[in-house]
Amino acid sequence: MRAHGVHAYIVPSTDAHMSEYISKRDARLGWLTGFTGSAGTSVVTQDKAALWTDSRYWTQAERELDCNWELQRTTWIESIAMWIMEAVPVGGNISLDPFLFSVATWNSYSQALYGSGRTLLPLETNLVDQAWGDQRPSPSSSKIYSLPAAFTGSSWQEKVAGIRQQMEQHVRRPTAVLLSGLEETAWLFNLRGDDIPYNPVFYSYTLLTNTSISLFVEGSRLSVAARESLSSGCPGPLCVELQEYGQVSAHLRNYTLGNVTVWLGTEYTTYGLYGIIPQEKLLEESYSPVMTAKAVKNAQEQELLRAAHVRDAVAVIQYLLWLEKKVPQGQVDEFSGAQHIDALRRAQQHSHGPSFQSISASGLNAALAHYSPSNGSSRTLSADEMYLFDTGGQYLDGTTDITRTVHWGQPTPLQKEAYTRVLMGNIDLSRLVFPSNTAGRTVESFARRALWDIGLNYGHGTGHGIGNFLSVHEWPVGFQSNNVPLAAGMFTSIEPGYYRDGEFGIRIEDIALVVEAQTKYQSEEKPFLTFEVVSLVPYDRNLIDLSLLSSEQIQYLNSYYKKIRERVGPELQRQQLQEEYKWLQESTEPFPVGSAVTTTATTAMLALTSLLSVLLSGLQA
Amino acid sequence: MRAHGVHAYIVPSTDAHMSEYISKRDARLGWLTGFTGSAGTSVVTQDKAALWTDSRYWTQAERELDCNWELQRTTWIESIAMWIMEAVPVGGNISLDPFLFSVATWNSYSQALYGSGRTLLPLETNLVDQAWGDQRPSPSSSKIYSLPAAFTGSSWQEKVAGIRQQMEQHVRRPTAVLLSGLEETAWLFNLRGDDIPYNPVFYSYTLLTNTSISLFVEGSRLSVAARESLSSGCPGPLCVELQEYGQVSAHLRNYTLGNVTVWLGTEYTTYGLYGIIPQEKLLEESYSPVMTAKAVKNAQEQELLRAAHVRDAVAVIQYLLWLEKKVPQGQVDEFSGAQHIDALRRAQQHSHGPSFQSISASGLNAALAHYSPSNGSSRTLSADEMYLFDTGGQYLDGTTDITRTVHWGQPTPLQKEAYTRVLMGNIDLSRLVFPSNTAGRTVESFARRALWDIGLNYGHGTGHGIGNFLSVHEWPVGFQSNNVPLAAGMFTSIEPGYYRDGEFGIRIEDIALVVEAQTKYQSEEKPFLTFEVVSLVPYDRNLIDLSLLSSEQIQYLNSYYKKIRERVGPELQRQQLQEEYKWLQESTEPFPVGSAVTTTATTAMLALTSLLSVLLSGLQA
Repeated sequence: MRAHGVHAYIVPSTDAHMSEYISKRDARLGWLTGFTGSAGTSVVTQDKAALWTDSRYWTQAERELDCNWELQRTTWIESIAMWIMEAVPVGGNISLDPFLFSVATWNSYSQALYGSGRTLLPLETNLVDQAWGDQRPSPSSSKIYSLPAAFTGSSWQEKVAGIRQQMEQHVRRPTAVLLSGLEETAWLFNLRGDDIPYNPVFYSYTLLTNTSISLFVEGSRLSVAARESLSSGCPGPLCVELQEYGQVSAHLRNYTLGNVTVWLGTEYTTYGLYGIIPQEKLLEESYSPVMTAKAVKNAQEQELLRAAHVRDAVAVIQYLLWLEKKVPQGQVDEFSGAQHIDALRRAQQHSHGPSFQSISASGLNAALAHYSPSNGSSRTLSADEMYLFDTGGQYLDGTTDITRTVHWGQPTPLQKEAYTRVLMGNIDLSRLVFPSNTAGRTVESFARRALWDIGLNYGHGTGHGIGNFLSVHEWPVGFQSNNVPLAAGMFTSIEPGYYRDGEFGIRIEDIALVVEAQTKYQSEEKPFLTFEVVSLVPYDRNLIDLSLLSSEQIQYLNSYYKKIRERVGPELQRQQLQEEYKWLQESTEPFPVGSAVTTTATTAMLALTSLLSVLLSGLQA
Repeated sequence: MRAHGVHAYIVPSTDAHMSEYISKRDARLGWLTGFTGSAGTSVVTQDKAALWTDSRYWTQAERELDCNWELQRTTWIESIAMWIMEAVPVGGNISLDPFLFSVATWNSYSQALYGSGRTLLPLETNLVDQAWGDQRPSPSSSKIYSLPAAFTGSSWQEKVAGIRQQMEQHVRRPTAVLLSGLEETAWLFNLRGDDIPYNPVFYSYTLLTNTSISLFVEGSRLSVAARESLSSGCPGPLCVELQEYGQVSAHLRNYTLGNVTVWLGTEYTTYGLYGIIPQEKLLEESYSPVMTAKAVKNAQEQELLRAAHVRDAVAVIQYLLWLEKKVPQGQVDEFSGAQHIDALRRAQQHSHGPSFQSISASGLNAALAHYSPSNGSSRTLSADEMYLFDTGGQYLDGTTDITRTVHWGQPTPLQKEAYTRVLMGNIDLSRLVFPSNTAGRTVESFARRALWDIGLNYGHGTGHGIGNFLSVHEWPVGFQSNNVPLAAGMFTSIEPGYYRDGEFGIRIEDIALVVEAQTKYQSEEKPFLTFEVVSLVPYDRNLIDLSLLSSEQIQYLNSYYKKIRERVGPELQRQQLQEEYKWLQESTEPFPVGSAVTTTATTAMLALTSLLSVLLSGLQA
């Protein structure tokens, strides 16, 4: 830092593609700080160092950071900038690697420091990599393969044609789209790899122009079939030219010498690449047309995801039954539980392992929303505690993500009420009917209201998009302010929760597809929308206080359970899982709707009943 | 335009203070286009002209614009820019008066035109004013007066001290706050005037520094008491120095030569004034600290607003009873109705006339959300049609705004269902419990859900802040994306609706105070919030389908009606309005909660009842 005249250096948790999960080679924040959470930012000055992370990771960060580090319990860039301004005097340089920050994030830092007398300085030399030296892991060299046609929604040529059509129709007439997101390139060409844990993607960039396609990737890693597929249209506008991964900057610099306009997504393109393109040749939007096209699944992709969820439900049901038997004997701990659910998923057809590190948390550990157990320190599951597991699988036909919370003994009244209200939130959002083009952020409170009613809440978002054998957290779908409006064909998780620090944690997460709703009146414009829940695992009856549910909520639950029976029952039988089949039938018994009767009605019935008994005793007399 | 080299000229509906209502002198858009709606933007080129306005005004604009004007049914600045880019070739100049556009709006235009090859050119000569010439009305010369102490929440000296404290505590240490909003200056000094219809404000600016106070206003217009109050602290930091209104730019230019930082609100400060201040001396936020302080009413201000609403309810109840008698005889039209409600309000104590132009709309006219009748063309009210009136009053102790929709005959099933669902939306948002610091936009969907359920919706916002004898639409409170988070002490309207073009319109609007909620569990941090409805007029029983309401909604209605009786009943008696008192008692009879009984319970009761009748017939036999 001194050699470069840098007074504060900002280190993010991301890689050059804004990937959520990163390879070991890109784990700079972890190497620097010791913190292993998936999201955070650190700043180092000559005499201070601090880490910012969100509420999911506060307790974890406290455990992992040593006393050299201050933990800052927020992720607002304004707060990072404030800290920097206290630590760095006017005239100082605040520096970062421009190839590790998105345009949007760079702009936020730039705005926050504006007029403060400190300079925000992009530095191409990465200071962490310099310090890391030979110890830094080397790049991946594993194979990159084509998805079989049975597992794709359309050919890569159709996808390219669709994107080019969007380019032509855009008022700015862009000549090229630059793809920095690893899932953008993987989706566009129906290719997959395993450079990053949990997400089947590979290091790459794509520059798709109106006349050519450049794919920046280590060419030798492509399978023969992949290579043949990409070159089948050569020469011509559907010929994919392979370029070295490291050549993207040089190529982009050269391309933008011409009379061109490059379309890119500022949420995940790095400031480094962005800076190469002259301002007047830029078409900036939050997300590229590939990102938004990918978010809306076509009928074939929807069917694939539905099918993956049926097999995924089998694995989760096997796990729930296994837990029911083993936990009371004290034979399961968080780590062995996580290993078991991972193994059950792997045994299912088309499995490619978990879609993220399994969260398996018992008792107070579940209060850490994203706790993952390690082999050394793992709590034993018990019938006296709640247990939360948030897990998912990668399958050739889809990506899954589901959370269930269970209790095998006697939950406390607060546990039962909180669980029931989290479930009510899940139901209320899942069964919501809303107009086309509604922003997720304007409806996510329906998942919170039942908790709010009694003064409770949760500190994380309510859902995220999910891919077809791609990222488990997929941009730009969800319920946050930077998500795009909901449209039919999008998949999102719905995952309210409740966490009581030092005591317990609850989360109920399902994946849902946005579908057209059948309404009594039809709008002249677009049809209204609702959700179809595709996760197919029943909730814990032991934790549901039926008296809190409205009859509409109970009816919704019963029809959801009916769907589970219809879709998962046959698959359990096909896999000859008779015990699981029986468990499913018991666990999806319809709930009595009448239990939601109002006090007045109950009183009236009591009156009638007592009148009846008077009369009956009269008869007997 | 040709003389100034201007290819497109943008004319807004606002004045130099971003006032919602404007004086005749500032009605440039109306003079230019003939459109009399309160919000719109027009663009004129050499051979085309277009007007943009929101869905409230589409039908009205169609009627009022002649064939020279294109009506654009949106208000997105992107769409205005798109139109301009089609009309003006690359290299053209797009011009506007920088003293009539807020910083935020200027930035939006600037962004939308960025990189398009057209230049956005501020032009200090106003081209409309030039064309208007002597015909343009002259400035107001009426008196500006001090509010009596009984009608203020705190003295102006206390308010100034509070703002100066915020300046000291701000990390940027601003040395001054610039107030451009007319209600900012009026609120700060407890002064009122009548330069603008409906809003008791006067043309002014204020520059409040840490050591001095400059009030830019026509000094001769101040009442003796007002002048004495302002000069009571002279000389010293609580001495208000009077400056000419027109001197604000020159004064600001001079002040910002020094080592100063000026804090201002970009949502309503004009780009013209903003541009005077060097960038490094600016502290830009959406709203000034005066605007945000004004939004949170203290206990005294809350009591004043509550009291105004009691008397306002008396006027509205008088009107409803009068309508009940006169409408069946065909004796009321929209215009005479509006005149009557205005007169009833004026007869109440502390009245200063209506707080906006009364909306009085029968039948299909109510489908225009903001229709106002004129004397010439006014529909006769009838027992065969729905009638909507949205009216409010200015009182020394508060500003009111209320909408009721009524039907004196037989509503259609759709009318009744739609009305009931609008009411359910009003109730659901009004009784919502939510965490402190929740943004309005994340909860406003609760006012829409009952409509969404059957495929209906409405095209306007759900509410707005309201002042204490100030603006009826008060920044920055409300449910839109540019509103600040809800906090205890804020007042907002809650006003869902439903409009069927060419048929009818429904809106139910109440004013509500944000208050602390009593919840079963208490958060460690801030208490949860809810609303206390301060409008006190019952809804039309003839339009409520009780079977759609949940028992919670009915219980809420009953407790609201109880509050109306308790607060308005005594005032009706004090004013010796016996007939109205009787009407109120009848109109606020509790609804039977049992009607919300579930089907199952009803079936069970039917079974018991029939068993009973069998037994009874057995006894008789």
